[in-house]
Amino acid sequence: MLDYAEPVTKLIDELKRLPGVGHKSAQRLAFYILRADRAETERLVEAINEVKEKIISCSVCNNITDVDPCRYCSNPARDRRIILVVEEPYNLVTIEKTREYKGLYHVLHGALSPIRGIGPDELKIKNLFERLRVEEVEEIILATNPNTEGEATANYLSKLLKPLGMRVTRIAMGVPVGSDLEYADEVTMHKALANRHEI
Amino acid sequence: MLDYAEPVTKLIDELKRLPGVGHKSAQRLAFYILRADRAETERLVEAINEVKEKIISCSVCNNITDVDPCRYCSNPARDRRIILVVEEPYNLVTIEKTREYKGLYHVLHGALSPIRGIGPDELKIKNLFERLRVEEVEEIILATNPNTEGEATANYLSKLLKPLGMRVTRIAMGVPVGSDLEYADEVTMHKALANRHEI
Repeated sequence: MLDYAEPVTKLIDELKRLPGVGHKSAQRLAFYILRADRAETERLVEAINEVKEKIISCSVCNNITDVDPCRYCSNPARDRRIILVVEEPYNLVTIEKTREYKGLYHVLHGALSPIRGIGPDELKIKNLFERLRVEEVEEIILATNPNTEGEATANYLSKLLKPLGMRVTRIAMGVPVGSDLEYADEVTMHKALANRHEI
Repeated sequence: MLDYAEPVTKLIDELKRLPGVGHKSAQRLAFYILRADRAETERLVEAINEVKEKIISCSVCNNITDVDPCRYCSNPARDRRIILVVEEPYNLVTIEKTREYKGLYHVLHGALSPIRGIGPDELKIKNLFERLRVEEVEEIILATNPNTEGEATANYLSKLLKPLGMRVTRIAMGVPVGSDLEYADEVTMHKALANRHEI
């Protein structure tokens, strides 16, 4: 008697598996779904199913895509001499939003993390080197996250890549544009000072 | 070229409709769903479908249920002389968890809110009075939320209920058990003082 009707409990349990969704939010989501129009929940269900059916991993760059190779890899307008390496597919959007980068991508699907047992074999590193054997690449931009794991991954890759003779660069770290120095942590501020340049 | 493959964008858009889910969380949820086992996403989809198919509103108390009348209303062990009024179905669980209340419930599905255009006709008030015509009710406990809208709803109901001759009570407001006075806001502290009792 204590709990909800069984289908509701089941839905709450499933929602709780989603990242960042605790018991309270799962409950709120479940009640929203309960009350929503049938048409709306059907659209949600269809969207989930469609993503699971249609989305695959690009065999070249590991980006998520509905065509293989993905739209970046097959676009003749992109500069094939530069590869920008990111951890996750959604990092591509952040880069694309700048409208400045015109090269190709490589998605690692993670970062090195000894604590979580993620070593080089767990990342999509092997097919990056396969690409370098086939394609004429002049620069690799390491755009892994500016945190411990992203830095470790960038350092690891840089050591392997440099001997191959191409330019290996890392995105700059510093104080974010539009922010206030007051809120910058020491490590960021240290980077901002170390990477200072003439103006 | 700027965005994700279309099925991914569609999923993010659908997830963004959920309460408390902004663009960033919708993105995170979508990528989780993308990467999850097919079996897991199928369970989620089934759970959503099942809730939409099986869950109905109890014709007596408006609680969500998979049988009509709901398990509370049809349970002969519950005390039919007391009805506890709540705003939302999930409020029942909070009450049930105390394992103290043995009466019946009535779910209003909201609270009065002139700002959001929610008047008495938008709430499930009519069938509360229908119940009172048929059943011998001795006490109505108003357990709407301890905020402006919940208070307004409790006051509104109390004015209509008192002339009918039954006892009308409101749950106590005061400092939460296990909390620290330091964190109590003025209004709560005012209630805690006003509702003080001999020990």
